[in-house]
Amino acid sequence: MNEKVNVNRAPDILPEPTLRRLPWYLAYLSTLKRAEVATISTTKIAEALDVDPSQIAKDLSFLGIRGKTRIGYNVDDLEQALRDYLGFDRSHNAVMMGVGSLGAALIADSGLHRYGLNIVAGVDINPNLVGTEISGVKIFHRERTARLVRDLNVKIGIIALPVEAAQEAADDLAAAGVRAIWNFTPSRIRVPEGVVISNTSIYSHLAVMYNRLSLIEQDGVK
Amino acid sequence: MNEKVNVNRAPDILPEPTLRRLPWYLAYLSTLKRAEVATISTTKIAEALDVDPSQIAKDLSFLGIRGKTRIGYNVDDLEQALRDYLGFDRSHNAVMMGVGSLGAALIADSGLHRYGLNIVAGVDINPNLVGTEISGVKIFHRERTARLVRDLNVKIGIIALPVEAAQEAADDLAAAGVRAIWNFTPSRIRVPEGVVISNTSIYSHLAVMYNRLSLIEQDGVK
Repeated sequence: MNEKVNVNRAPDILPEPTLRRLPWYLAYLSTLKRAEVATISTTKIAEALDVDPSQIAKDLSFLGIRGKTRIGYNVDDLEQALRDYLGFDRSHNAVMMGVGSLGAALIADSGLHRYGLNIVAGVDINPNLVGTEISGVKIFHRERTARLVRDLNVKIGIIALPVEAAQEAADDLAAAGVRAIWNFTPSRIRVPEGVVISNTSIYSHLAVMYNRLSLIEQDGVK
Repeated sequence: MNEKVNVNRAPDILPEPTLRRLPWYLAYLSTLKRAEVATISTTKIAEALDVDPSQIAKDLSFLGIRGKTRIGYNVDDLEQALRDYLGFDRSHNAVMMGVGSLGAALIADSGLHRYGLNIVAGVDINPNLVGTEISGVKIFHRERTARLVRDLNVKIGIIALPVEAAQEAADDLAAAGVRAIWNFTPSRIRVPEGVVISNTSIYSHLAVMYNRLSLIEQDGVK
């Protein structure tokens, strides 16, 4: 009950808004580190990122990190603590379900690898793709999914399939023992209890952007 | 003041959670349409997507659409209304800032094109990339940005650059007259008033997923 947060063990549950802000801090800290800045104050971080200073202090306190009065945070230490906490330095094995346009693009994105995602195999039903490699990642037939998950110690299944195939793929992955599903389709996917679901519908973000854009254009006409 | 929502004119401001759910409905309706289902009830949509039925009725009422008692919604009409409303059938010109791994992947993703995003040019500073084409999209030097935005009627700038280059690119785009910026970097970007900013940090989603995953693994050990 009274345990303190300790970055060396698995992290406690954090509010999702905090979790989403931590990568902003990390991105900013990495820039400072490259520029060889030694220390940084909450106020400076707040200015750079347009986040309330008290919010930043609160977010970082979840990691058990407190700045020093008048000095602030040590840039190297804070950067490393954020990397550790966010799990970007650990390797997480994943399988890509669907290696069409988006799936292939995600496999090719070295950024994901840099953030600890290790895509060990691709899965598709297209006979022209099965047996090939994309950026060094082998593509297998869908019926091999369960075996791939077991043999390659896959914890994360990424779904970049057509909408109508998404739920079935999620069911296959969950049955095979995957612990988290990252859904890139615009469709809602259900998973059994105990399986993490993360939705990244870039097309939904597009819808939000188009809507805001048309409002601005309306204003422009007025 | 008393205007009704009309899908034929530019949409009113919607709560962002509603806007994010609309693509789920569209994805589900498209599946039904392909399966030649004629009508669908709120209850069925609710079951399929795990959303509260009253929430669905409320979301769709923003589009001026109401289901009929005992019949529900006409699948074709609702699908089309959602497509119209979300702007996926209109073409939006965009420029890709940074055509490294992620930028090139997004250009290659035909899904974005299907959802109305027309990437007309890429921008980079890498001399090996400038002058080449990626999936038929020409890559220009960064100093050409303002001219590209003007000449090609670009409304949206997409940023897939290293963190430290993101803010400067956003400033260039805003100065050139872009109306919306879609930021794929994990860093926070500031834009002038009147410019829409949309953040899709896939790496932040990764952080949230890792965190939830380590909690599950902790539970498993207990």
